[in-house]
Parts: sequence; structure tokens; C-alpha cells
Amino acid sequence: VEHRRNQESQPVFTPLKSLNDILFYFTHTSQNVSSLADLLPAMDGDTKTMTFLQEVVDILMAYIVESFDRETKVIDFHYPNELLQMNNWELQDEPATLDDILISCRATLKYAIKTAHPRYFNQLSTGLDMVGLAADWLTSTANTNMFTYEVAPVFVLLEYVSLKKMREIIGWQDGRGDGIFSPGGAISNMYAMLLARFKMFPEVKEKGMSSVPRLVAFTSEHSHFSIKKGAAALGIGTESVISAQLKRDMSQGFVPFFVSATAGTTVYGAFDPLIAISDVCKKYNVWMHVDGAWGGSLLMSRRHRWKLDGVDRANSVTWNPHKMMSVPLQCSALLVREEGLMQNCNQMHACYLFQQDKHYDLSYDTGDKALQCGRHVDIFKLWLMWRAKGTIGFEAQIDKCLELSEYLYNKIKDREGYEMVFDGKPQHTNVCFWYLPPGIRYMEDKEERKKHLHKVAPVIKARMMEYGTTMVSYQPQGDKVNFFRMVISNPAATFEDIDFLIEEIERLGQDL
Amino acid sequence: VEHRRNQESQPVFTPLKSLNDILFYFTHTSQNVSSLADLLPAMDGDTKTMTFLQEVVDILMAYIVESFDRETKVIDFHYPNELLQMNNWELQDEPATLDDILISCRATLKYAIKTAHPRYFNQLSTGLDMVGLAADWLTSTANTNMFTYEVAPVFVLLEYVSLKKMREIIGWQDGRGDGIFSPGGAISNMYAMLLARFKMFPEVKEKGMSSVPRLVAFTSEHSHFSIKKGAAALGIGTESVISAQLKRDMSQGFVPFFVSATAGTTVYGAFDPLIAISDVCKKYNVWMHVDGAWGGSLLMSRRHRWKLDGVDRANSVTWNPHKMMSVPLQCSALLVREEGLMQNCNQMHACYLFQQDKHYDLSYDTGDKALQCGRHVDIFKLWLMWRAKGTIGFEAQIDKCLELSEYLYNKIKDREGYEMVFDGKPQHTNVCFWYLPPGIRYMEDKEERKKHLHKVAPVIKARMMEYGTTMVSYQPQGDKVNFFRMVISNPAATFEDIDFLIEEIERLGQDL
Repeated sequence: VEHRRNQESQPVFTPLKSLNDILFYFTHTSQNVSSLADLLPAMDGDTKTMTFLQEVVDILMAYIVESFDRETKVIDFHYPNELLQMNNWELQDEPATLDDILISCRATLKYAIKTAHPRYFNQLSTGLDMVGLAADWLTSTANTNMFTYEVAPVFVLLEYVSLKKMREIIGWQDGRGDGIFSPGGAISNMYAMLLARFKMFPEVKEKGMSSVPRLVAFTSEHSHFSIKKGAAALGIGTESVISAQLKRDMSQGFVPFFVSATAGTTVYGAFDPLIAISDVCKKYNVWMHVDGAWGGSLLMSRRHRWKLDGVDRANSVTWNPHKMMSVPLQCSALLVREEGLMQNCNQMHACYLFQQDKHYDLSYDTGDKALQCGRHVDIFKLWLMWRAKGTIGFEAQIDKCLELSEYLYNKIKDREGYEMVFDGKPQHTNVCFWYLPPGIRYMEDKEERKKHLHKVAPVIKARMMEYGTTMVSYQPQGDKVNFFRMVISNPAATFEDIDFLIEEIERLGQDL
Repeated sequence: VEHRRNQESQPVFTPLKSLNDILFYFTHTSQNVSSLADLLPAMDGDTKTMTFLQEVVDILMAYIVESFDRETKVIDFHYPNELLQMNNWELQDEPATLDDILISCRATLKYAIKTAHPRYFNQLSTGLDMVGLAADWLTSTANTNMFTYEVAPVFVLLEYVSLKKMREIIGWQDGRGDGIFSPGGAISNMYAMLLARFKMFPEVKEKGMSSVPRLVAFTSEHSHFSIKKGAAALGIGTESVISAQLKRDMSQGFVPFFVSATAGTTVYGAFDPLIAISDVCKKYNVWMHVDGAWGGSLLMSRRHRWKLDGVDRANSVTWNPHKMMSVPLQCSALLVREEGLMQNCNQMHACYLFQQDKHYDLSYDTGDKALQCGRHVDIFKLWLMWRAKGTIGFEAQIDKCLELSEYLYNKIKDREGYEMVFDGKPQHTNVCFWYLPPGIRYMEDKEERKKHLHKVAPVIKARMMEYGTTMVSYQPQGDKVNFFRMVISNPAATFEDIDFLIEEIERLGQDL
């Protein structure tokens, strides 16, 4: 049976001429063409490997320099079908040469968005920190897994050190508690909800939701959609995520188990009143989570951390260094006040990973705390950047971004043709505004005006992308028609870049 | 209020002398010491950036060459407390110099496990593919997010192309269907369970588990622990994951909704009979998932793909190219037969990301299919490696690893001092065996012998790590005492490396 061939289930291969075809590709390449088979681990692969990697690095370095150059485009935009046809991206049975591989690298970067460009304001995770980048290259090279100390001794310790420091900054005594880096804020928030449910009803782990009463989670209307995604996934249901009064719902037989306060909402960058929320949570004995994916980094700023006053009362905090702190994607921490809970909630005692008779301190094996089995090393880039900047470096960078957004706000709040979407100065770097082109600026009919205004931002955005000069996001929200949502998290941006954005919006929108 | 300082919540900063301290660190560094502030985006940062990155690359290249050198240690082992004390890993308020940063990079790699080393057999995700590495460096440099075509045009297309190719290989007509790359097999498996539940009871998304009957998921005893983790998280409960007969449980009022067949179990590398399972799933109208995280890659091999016969009948398949295909961590695909289901199951219509009036084809925005909001670019390394090797390159690499394990199996199956843990030739590269040192080889008392044998593998493993010569995993399983579990996924390994492992086990264990 072993060598049986099921011809019908082989639709993907071109006919195999002979086994020599394979041997050819892997042991002999023609004299002038280098292939993968020439690189390490080939016996004499050192030099060719160095040469190849150096060529890749040269391409990357040229791209980096270009990304920071205001004379280059943020994007060389093409429609999906167009881009699919512009190159051969298809996967083949036969190998390409190393020269082809370098061409593919260049093509990929040619059509990539320069998220590091100082005029890219489209969304979060902008900028490219050079130490963070170096750290990420090192992480790729070390290519290991966070589940045990055995395979990631240094990285596991650095995660330990960094999480402790972050808990100290939150204000938990001596940095005590627990935590983990997870693949993004949505998963971190889901972890928090999972822990809250387990804390109140530990039997849910074995018996499922049928063993517990109907649960209700509370969050503000402007919270991130991951709270609802989490509730749907965990079997709680999106209808059980509400923004009503705690008291009313308790009287209907629902059991509130989780409140997610937001520190820095996605659209407006608003901060929920954490102290007041903690009082309510304490009164009703409900888990208090702070979703600080976006706003958590303000804890690093002596000038702005008051916006999170009360965060030390939370049971868990999501904090994404890959947003405001410019750590390369992804780097999201969930911090948990109670020690041991993550382990109890998620462990399944897989003996093939977490042997109990190892010769080192097993508390450093973090894998059974996580939902993931393998876990990417996200810590090193944060840790190395923190070393390079110090806490005061992150602080300076955060303060600068907030200054830039204040500058933008002050510039447009009374400028002709602009309207702000919400009242007052932004608490974070989110500046939400409408641009009204001259043609609709004085329209009397409010409904008509609204209808026209709704189309302005998408057109300006599409033109921006086609020119490739800058990018900023837009969106509708409730009964508010499309508005621009400016977010600043790139420390490379300057006051002049803000000026440029305004000029570009006006240039591209004046005929609308 | 804005500039209010809450002194009590600032335990982490050393006293601020003056704002000039910060300015000092960020605008002036002493003449001889380079700091982060000298790098891009500094106005004249190009040269210093190139120099710094090149120094990092030089460190990485030296590490790569060393990793493939059999004369170097796999690991320079230190106990956690020892390692914590050997360097200063603490995070400080003040920034370090770039020289310090380079020292940190060297120290990190010095104590890292060389997972690329040809004698590292500890677990999966071994080897370091040079094209995969180059691709991962490029991914870091592009530093973007998979949620929309807008910010990741090329990567989104490459994911589209690669998932289609993988579905063709599974055998789904014209490669139709859906899928996503997720952070690891555990999350991919959880996605499958989520989809199965939603398919049968779409109301669960809004109303939660209280709206549906008691659910049961089936999987084999040897399946991966992520199935139970998923069931716990999704509110199904671990007790509802059973390896009993479908029919019996239906009669008790439980509703079976999900069967997870394993293609390549973690410990034994065994393959469940997919065709027989698919018949049962069809009869009872239950979702059939194939967890091919480990074994899925055998689909690339004409010689071995028969082990997955019937996989084309599955509703979903997990397949981790970061395991058997040596793609750098992480790269895990979930493939789904039904189009549109992922979107319906997970979407929350977050209008600030997924505007409906964009100027391009919105079907390329993948973010609302995922539980994650931001999603790391995992596709490029797989895509570029596939280009460099071709399908036949992956095939040759997979076949080679299976040959190596066959060699090991043949070598030890009748060798004195060895016992195999399961009967017959391994189906995958997992070779599970006991080594019996001379001292216990002829013990008459079976219980006594078992007791001694249980301690053998941990001691040999600890010695291996201290010598740093090689690494292989061990574990107990059920009533079986600690045995070695050899897995081969590193194409750099040779027959001689297998010989070395055997010799090393015997050398380190002969006095036990």
C-alpha cells in the first residue's frame, strides 16, 4: 500500500517525467544560474548565501530610504485585477532562479504601501522604527517558538521582564500579575473575556455554556468590534454585548460578568471614565477589562497618563505596543492582575510539550497559558526598542504625536470649509472632520448638503491613492456621513506633513 | 485638567530633572556615541541607518553560518535564574547607545537555541530556509497589515493565489472555496469549530450557546490538545469533546456538529482514515474537519499523499506550512470548502475599516473573515519559498525527511537496547522509542524496570542540553513511561546526523 499512487487526487502536478527531474533541480543547476539549492545548508553554501541575503538586504535598504523620502509616492496604486495581471504571481511546479526571486522581492515592494512614509496617515501601525526592524530581522533569524523556555530561553525571559515592567506602569504593586503577548488586540480582548467568564464560572471550561446562566457583557457604543467578535466566538452571543445600565439587566435574570472599558476608542480616541466604571464593577463584582489597545501607550507619558486614571483597578488590560509605540506588527499584550488564572483557564496538560520532569524551573513554560500552541516571538522588537529609547524615548515619541494632532485640530477647527465631527479637543491623536468643498459649502438644503458631503471623502481618498501623495482614512458613523479620520502614530511625521495633508485635501476636493 | 499629573500613578519613572533631559536624548547625542535618534527618520540618517542595519545583518549572517555548522553547539544552556543574572536584561528609563543594542543582539543569539542546526530534533519547525528567511525580512520591512487590500495590495493577492493553489492540492474543484492564514494551527482548528457551529446553528452568533442544543465534537484520543482548548474557549466545554461512537451520543440528546480527523497526530504521526470518517459525517450531516497541521504537507508528495485520501471530502482543513515545509514561524492555513461562510460567521461590519464605498473590488478586503482585526503578513515567506522550490521542491524536501525517519526506524527497530513505542513503520516522520541503558536492559521485575526506564529519557535529554550537542524530545503517554519522540522536519539533516543522535543517546545514557 505504501507506494500506492492515487492518480485522481493529483491534479496539481504537471506529469512527472522521471525522478531525475527532481534530482536535477536539487543537485545540479546550470553553471550560470543560482538556485535555492546552492544556498545553505548546501556544503559550500556560505558564500552564495551571504551574497543572496546581502542582495535582499540591499533591496530592503533602498526601500527603507525611499519610504522616508517625501518626494516618493506613498503608494503606486493599481486595481486588484490590474495588479494580478501586471506580474506573474502564480505558483508553479518548477523552481525559479535566485535572480527571479530577487525580481519578485522588488516587485512586491514596488506595489506595497509605504506605511513608514511620513505622509501615510491611513490608520494605525505607521512608521518604521529602525531598531524595531533590526529586532524583527533577528527574530526571523532565530525562528523559534514561545511555548517553552527550552526552545526560546532568552525570548521567554524578555517577555517576563517586559510584562512585569508594563504591569508596574499600569500601577499594579511590584508589577505582580500575569500576562501574555498575543497576535493582536482582538485576541487579547477575547482572552480577557475568556478569563472573566472562567473566573466567575470555572465549570464552563469542562461543561460549556450550558452549565452557566445567561451572561451579559457591557461595553460602550464606541468600543472596538472585537468585543462583539469575541462574544460571538465564545458562545456568549453578540446580543449579550450591550451598552445599557448594569442594574437593569441584572433584574432580568442575566448575569453581568464582564465590562470592557475603552481607553482610546478606535474612531474618536475617547477614554471611558475608568474610576467610575471600576466603582460599578466593584459593586456588582464584575470583571473590569480596559481595552487600551490604542490608548494604553499613553501610560508611558507623564503628560497624558491621567486619561487612564483608574486603570490600576482593572482586572485585565489590553495594550498594543504595535500601535502608538510604533513597534512592528504584531505586538499586543494582555496584562492580567490575578496570577495563575490564565494557566488554570487555558491549560490542557499536553504532556508532549509540557513535561513535568524537566530539569529547569517549569514556571517559565508559558504555552499552557495560551490558546495558541505555537506562538510567534513578538517580544524582541518591543524589548530592543525599549532598550534603545528608554521609557523616556517612548514618552517623547507619544507626546510628539499628540502635539501633531493638536496642531491639526487647532489648524482646522475654525478654518473655512471644515467641520469637526465631535466637540472639543481630541483626547488621543484621532482628529475626525469633514471637508466641505466650495460647491456645497453654502448649500441651504441640509439633507441635500449631507448627501453630497457623504461622497466627498471617498472621492478625495480615491484621488489621493491614485496620485499616491498621501493617505488618510474616512468612514461614516451612525447618522454621520463620511468623514475623515486622521490618526497619528508615526513619529516621523512633522507639522509640515500635517500642512501638506490639508493642502492636498483642498487641492483634490475643490472641484467637488 | 489636561496637564494634571497624578504623582501616585507614576511609579515607573525616575524623577524627571527637566524636559531638557528628553530633548537631550533625542536631539543631541555625544559626538562619539550613536543613538537611535541618529537613524532614519533623522534628516541625515541614511548613512547611519545603513551602517547600523548592516552591522545587525552581519551578526545575523554569522549566526546563520554557525547554525548550520555541526561543530557548533545546538544550545549554550543556562538555567533561567542563571541566564537572568548573566546579563542585564532590565528595561530602563534612559536610552542605550546603538553599540549597546548590537551587544544585546549578540547576547540574545548567543543563548538562543539554534533551531536550524541539523542536529536539533526537539520538535517541529526546525531548519531555516534561506529564501523563507529573506521573505520574512522583507515582510518585516513592509510592516503592514492583512486586513484590507488598501494597505496590503500585493500580500492580499498572494494570499489569494496561494490559498487557491492549496485548495487545488486538497482536491477541491478548480480550487474553489475559502480560507485564511491564522496565527498557528490551534487558532485554525478553533476557526473550523466556530464555522461548523455557525453552519448548523447560525443563530449562535447573536444569541450564544443558550439558543442551541448541547453540542458534541468528536475527535480521536491522539488528536491535538487545541481541539479541547477550542471547545473550552467557544463555550462548548471540554467534556463535550469525545472519542466515542457518533450514534450512541445522538441518542442521548446531544447534537454532534463537528468531527476533527487528524492527519498526522502530534505524538505518533498517525493518520485517521479520512474516507471512512467522511462516510459517517455525511450520514449524520456533521462537519468534517481535517487537522492536517502536521500531516497536511504530505499532500505535496506524490509518494505519500495517499495517507490523506478522502481529504477532499472535508469541510475544512488545517495545514501548517511552518511545520513540514520549513516555512519560518508562523504560517498556518485554514482551508474551507464553502465560500462565504467565514465572512458570515465572523463579520461585524466595522465601518471604519471596511467602508462599502471604496473605489476597488471589496472582496479583497479579508479582515471581516477573521477573528483578528489586524493580521500579520504570514503569506510572503510561503509564497516566495514556493516560487524558489516549486511544488516539486517541497515534494523532494518532504520525501527526504520521510526517508530519514525510515532510516532511523530501520536502524533502531531491532537494535539492542531499543524498543519501539508503537508497532509498525511510522506513517509520518515521528519515531517514538525507548532507549534502555545496559543497567536496566535485563531487569526481570517489569514494574521496577518501568520505573527506572521512566527516568532515563529526562536524564539523557538534560545531559544533551548541557553538552549542547543535540536535542530530542521525550514524553510519557497514557500508561507508557517517558519515551523519545523523534520528529524530522529539517531538510538540512542527513543520515549521519541520525547516526550521531543514536550514538549520543547511547554515550549519555550508558551509565544509567
